Amino acid sequence: MPTPLPPLLYADTRANPDLLYFGRVEVHDPFLAFGARGRKITVQGALEFGRVKRTGAFDTVLSREEWMERARRDFGPKASVAEMIACLAQAHRLRAFRVNDDFPAALYTKLRALGLRLEFANGLLFPEREIKTPAEAAAIREGNRLACVGFKVVEDVLRRARIKGRTLLFQQKPLTSERLIFLVETAIKEQGGDARDTIIAGGDQACDPHERGSGPLRPHELIIVDIFPRHQASGYHGDMTRTYLKGRPREVQRRMVATVRTAQLAATRLIRAGVDGRDIHQAVHATFTEAGYETRRDANGAVGFIHGTGHGLGLAVHDPGRIGPVSAKLQAGAVVTVEPGLYYPGLGGCRWEDVVQVTATGSRPLSRHPYRWEIR
Amino acid sequence: MPTPLPPLLYADTRANPDLLYFGRVEVHDPFLAFGARGRKITVQGALEFGRVKRTGAFDTVLSREEWMERARRDFGPKASVAEMIACLAQAHRLRAFRVNDDFPAALYTKLRALGLRLEFANGLLFPEREIKTPAEAAAIREGNRLACVGFKVVEDVLRRARIKGRTLLFQQKPLTSERLIFLVETAIKEQGGDARDTIIAGGDQACDPHERGSGPLRPHELIIVDIFPRHQASGYHGDMTRTYLKGRPREVQRRMVATVRTAQLAATRLIRAGVDGRDIHQAVHATFTEAGYETRRDANGAVGFIHGTGHGLGLAVHDPGRIGPVSAKLQAGAVVTVEPGLYYPGLGGCRWEDVVQVTATGSRPLSRHPYRWEIR
Repeated sequence: MPTPLPPLLYADTRANPDLLYFGRVEVHDPFLAFGARGRKITVQGALEFGRVKRTGAFDTVLSREEWMERARRDFGPKASVAEMIACLAQAHRLRAFRVNDDFPAALYTKLRALGLRLEFANGLLFPEREIKTPAEAAAIREGNRLACVGFKVVEDVLRRARIKGRTLLFQQKPLTSERLIFLVETAIKEQGGDARDTIIAGGDQACDPHERGSGPLRPHELIIVDIFPRHQASGYHGDMTRTYLKGRPREVQRRMVATVRTAQLAATRLIRAGVDGRDIHQAVHATFTEAGYETRRDANGAVGFIHGTGHGLGLAVHDPGRIGPVSAKLQAGAVVTVEPGLYYPGLGGCRWEDVVQVTATGSRPLSRHPYRWEIR
Repeated sequence: MPTPLPPLLYADTRANPDLLYFGRVEVHDPFLAFGARGRKITVQGALEFGRVKRTGAFDTVLSREEWMERARRDFGPKASVAEMIACLAQAHRLRAFRVNDDFPAALYTKLRALGLRLEFANGLLFPEREIKTPAEAAAIREGNRLACVGFKVVEDVLRRARIKGRTLLFQQKPLTSERLIFLVETAIKEQGGDARDTIIAGGDQACDPHERGSGPLRPHELIIVDIFPRHQASGYHGDMTRTYLKGRPREVQRRMVATVRTAQLAATRLIRAGVDGRDIHQAVHATFTEAGYETRRDANGAVGFIHGTGHGLGLAVHDPGRIGPVSAKLQAGAVVTVEPGLYYPGLGGCRWEDVVQVTATGSRPLSRHPYRWEIR
């Protein structure tokens, strides 16, 4: 097999997890990083130079000011980042790189005009990023522990809330999604996590799986709580979902919740290295259809099982790897969510989400929290 | 002047503020949006369709599933996003678009192979984004009000902290950057803001302007507090910096703090539509050099005035527009930070940062908070 071309990245670490995977230091403005004979090199402006150097994340930290000066010497006063990269490539005797599919197109065009050969990764710049080391799995477990901190807050608040007609009263005030999200995210932050965009959506709001939830939470309605905190010390994420109901569930709610949990267990049992994720996703679909939960699209969107069964989890909440309608073999060491869900306006939504690491013979759980959903 | 080509965007709104500016609805996975005869069109998968449609942010919301089906009909089963865009372009009788410089390169290459003409914005996809409407200025003011919530927390905590040797004790525990950042960010969150990566760095840590600060804060050392919260309801940011010292300042610290404030006032007085930002930046530099504060680079980075004087502020913390070493005329209506700073290991760092909107005759302040920095 030919040696892959050295990687070339130009991005900020928030927009591009590959860059964080490569360099392991956060920088929030676009910067350059590349590989040269197995060494990791970055170019940093004065603002970041000292900090990045001290982390030891890169083998070499070069000064952007110095290299821009050199580019202007070689290419004239209009020299930009592209010309600087050309200078650096020449100095390191490199003529070709592999780049992310979302490498900035204008820079791509200029670098090619300057004679560099750029090859698209065509998917993953670092295929090994999909496979998690034991340290990475432990960091994801920490992320999930932080999610559980949030579930405990939700359970505690719902337990203490009083039902008054169609309202939930907590500490004498109507309980809203916003207020509960605040309490959850603050508790997680205090424990060293960063939970953003937490979903606490009740009733029909939960039927849009990416609706965060707003306004009063109602008794006797299903409430979906989806928490995906970043464990700040490591940069890795947890991602778990639990469904709750404060009050008395109707039989149709009870049945839907049980069906989703059954589907989640069945999907988890199918996970094993070498299995096609599409087969698992189709099995979940079939389980739902057989139980009478049809998936269909209408003018306002879709109802039923309207999303994938799972996705990779790591430095990004949506890390490489999918368990969904597209064929893709599960790899040993991959970490994926398992999160079937059902959504029917009028009835509400239900989702259970856990995280496992794929092994040769099955999977190993990386998340752990009870499935008690009825809160009186 | 020829009509500019309709814009074509493929990104998520977190990575690309232009997309949020165009569509005004947050979507955290990459999606397609484009203009067609002044109308704003987006393509959304089932997961986001209903939510995006309900916001009314786009004139037309199309179903990704439907259009991918059509792409597969026209181009075969391997059709991807590129082929879907080709179908959409044909249906809307469009053959050319303008795209962001950081449009994904692989998609750019495929679209060109499919016969579409793509022109780089070469800077700003929406040049009008630099000019802020009164509503946008008000939202930025709200962002700054949230930053002040944070300063009040810092001032209150520092006031109540006790000096014990080289330690600051707050509620019987050593006061750390992390703890103070937590208190600041939580208070801001409670008020409807999202403050991330807040900087509270003392002593030499503050000499790396992007170092967030960690470990114990010390008495008698300068502490830089830089807060740039997002006002969640509008999506716009505030961005302000204050410098503090708990204990007794040395004369050299006092002098540096006063010099930076003088430079900030002088820079603000120079702001007016039509003025070149570079002239302002050079004036700040000259003020510092004349006062004996030299800027120089050494092996570990740089000391003195090591960053720009200001930057645009809006949907992004670093919005279009710079007051720095590169020539760029200030435009009426632009909102910029004014933030000179000095950094010398051993002495520490100091930065004052406020926000103004450029007018024809000067500027209008969008931030407001005292400059009392000594806390006994």
